[in-house]
Parts: sequence; C-alpha cells; structure tokens
Amino acid sequence: MNRKSAVLFSVLAGASLASGMFMFSSSGDAQSTAPDGREAARYLPEYTPNGDLILPKNWRHWVFVGSPLTPNALNDGKANFPEFHNVYIEPGSFAIYEKTGKFPEGTIFFKELQLTLKGENPDGSRTEPSGRGYFPGPFNGADVTVKDSKRYPDTDGWGYYNFNHHEPKAKTASLRPKDECGSCHMASARKDDVWTQFYPMLDDIAKKFGG
Amino acid sequence: MNRKSAVLFSVLAGASLASGMFMFSSSGDAQSTAPDGREAARYLPEYTPNGDLILPKNWRHWVFVGSPLTPNALNDGKANFPEFHNVYIEPGSFAIYEKTGKFPEGTIFFKELQLTLKGENPDGSRTEPSGRGYFPGPFNGADVTVKDSKRYPDTDGWGYYNFNHHEPKAKTASLRPKDECGSCHMASARKDDVWTQFYPMLDDIAKKFGG
Repeated sequence: MNRKSAVLFSVLAGASLASGMFMFSSSGDAQSTAPDGREAARYLPEYTPNGDLILPKNWRHWVFVGSPLTPNALNDGKANFPEFHNVYIEPGSFAIYEKTGKFPEGTIFFKELQLTLKGENPDGSRTEPSGRGYFPGPFNGADVTVKDSKRYPDTDGWGYYNFNHHEPKAKTASLRPKDECGSCHMASARKDDVWTQFYPMLDDIAKKFGG
Repeated sequence: MNRKSAVLFSVLAGASLASGMFMFSSSGDAQSTAPDGREAARYLPEYTPNGDLILPKNWRHWVFVGSPLTPNALNDGKANFPEFHNVYIEPGSFAIYEKTGKFPEGTIFFKELQLTLKGENPDGSRTEPSGRGYFPGPFNGADVTVKDSKRYPDTDGWGYYNFNHHEPKAKTASLRPKDECGSCHMASARKDDVWTQFYPMLDDIAKKFGG
C-alpha cells in the first residue's frame, strides 16, 4: 500500500472546534495525559437551561469498561436490566482516573443497554457455532451517571439519568430520585459509588492507589 | 469550573509522531472521516521480520462492538471461549467501514477475553445487587483478526492469531491454521467472514449497504 504520511493538524483542530464537543485545557485538573502520551481531550456534561442532562455525544468512541449481564430468564422474568450493560467511561476522565485514582468532576459513565438475541433455551440462551450462550442484539436505551459534587450533594456527588429503556434514546433526561439509583450505588458499589468490583479496567487502577 | 480553552496541536501531533502508532494519510483509501467530522487516524498491523503479528497497541481505546458470552456451565464445561468476548475494531478502519460498508485492508479486530467472576449457581452465574447473572472478572488473553488479502489468500483475506488464552498476553503471535479459526468464520459469519449477525454496531452498517 502506498500511503503518504502527512499530519492533518488543521483538519483535526477544525473539526474539534466546529463540533464544540471537546474541551482542551492548558491548565488545571482538566488537563490530562493518556497512557500513550497523547493529551487527553474531555467531553464534559451538557445541560439544558432547566437543568436536564443532554444525551452525551459520541459515547461509542469512549473507553469500554465491561458488560455485565443479568438475563430475565435467570431473574424470574423481571430483571431490572435484562440486557447487556455496555459500560463506557468518557476518555478524558478515564485518563485522569488512571493518573490520580480518582474520578474527576465531570466524569461521565454511559451504560448502553443491549438486548440479547432471543434464545431457545430455558435460561434465555441460544446455540450458535461458538457455543451456547448470550449474544448481543438490538440496543435498548441507556443510563448515564455524572460526577458533580456541587450539583448532586445528596448522592455523594453523582447524578443518575435514564435516556429511555427502549430506542430511540431520549435527547434529554431529568435527574432520577435518590432511591431509584443512587441509594444502591451508595450502599454496595466499591469505590466512590462506582461498581469497580465488576470492572477490572477500573478496579486494577483503584487497587494501585489503595482504594 | 474555570477552564481555559486552548488547542494543543503541538502536543497531539508530537505524541502521535513519537509513538509511531498512527498513520495519517492525505489521500487514498486510508483517509477517512469519522461521524463527528474528525479525520480518522489508523493503526495498521505490525509484523516481526519473520512475519509474526505484533500485539496491537492501545486496543482498549478502540471502538467496542459487542461482548458475546458462552459460559462453560452452559457448554458441558468445555466452551471454546468461556469468557466474555470483548470485541473491538480499530477506529480508523471502522470509520472507513461506516463510509463504505467494506472492511478495508489493514482492518484489525481485537477480541479480549475476560473471565466471568466465579458464580455459585449451577449455570455459573452469581447473584449481585443488580440481579443474577454474569459479571466481568480478570482478563484472560486475546485473539486478533487482520484483513490483508495478499497475505492471507487461503482464508478469504483474513489472518487469525492467538495471543494466549491466559495473561499476560503474548507479545507476538504466529498465524493459526485455517481449520482452527478461518474455516468456521468462512462457513457461518454473515459478512466478509465477520460475525456481524452478533454485532448490531457492524450489522446495521452492513444492512445500510445491502450486505
């Protein structure tokens, strides 16, 4: 293959500015360096004038951290989340977490729900060439968690949002009450109300910092 | 928060060049634009002098496409891959696929294997606050697939590699024989020997292009 190497700064920069999605900072805690040495850009939470959270942009290009699965068939047909939970963290926040062991203000977790393909077995699984199990199917809404200590003082500084439990995802979402999401995170999630115990991507870093 | 907006071109560019990881191209099929308008950089396969594949770099920052699960307990204790299959695609290749409906030469799929946390139930599941199911545990090696029509003519232009079925991952890997991986992909994977039927992230694009 005959490829010309030419670094397209202007394209990268123009697109970043035009999209309005990325915050580049020259100082302060919003500056961070990813493991490969790149300067990490951050996407920060965006709100409507009345304080609803706007559906985060571009999450499928974020850092995937894990995908727990609690199928309906194993939960008397009524799992709270019968789908794959594809959990992503905003990459600029992750870079800071890697460096400090703390989730910075503005951290966003995006949990995209993805149905399993319909299964013929009693446990909801199906059989494919790779074996009997659970296979990803259609997307089915999303939940989002945002860290902002000033905005969410009653839930340890985290806000919880649901952008529908079906498609299409809502464009904006209102804060969920504490007893719907926050209380369970506060009671059982290992680190700073995040379920790091199910995400080695996060837990290995927590342990490195003694958390 | 008081943040200064300053675009750090030199840092981004210097790191990209220094790492040697990214190919920027001003023309040809290696140029591509991601959905958000950014110019997509590509990481292309790297080989040792004797033709072994070098473990791809930075895959956890790639685009996650899905995580099928075929637990041992549902496969008579001997699933080929009893772990979560966390499948990623190299982002520059994905951008081209989004635009053309074809996996370009140099496409890399990275399947990171991740054990489920030990479960107390007969089906290998465990019970947590979110329900009974399967939860991600330690990483456990990786499989990698590379598209190169000239290098892999006997397997439809795809090469299959294993970087251990345990940690740490191997630094390099030799090509696996056709009957170990390629033949099953060739027989049953929906699009260009890729299991798009289990990855709506890929399948929705294939359908858009009639594939």
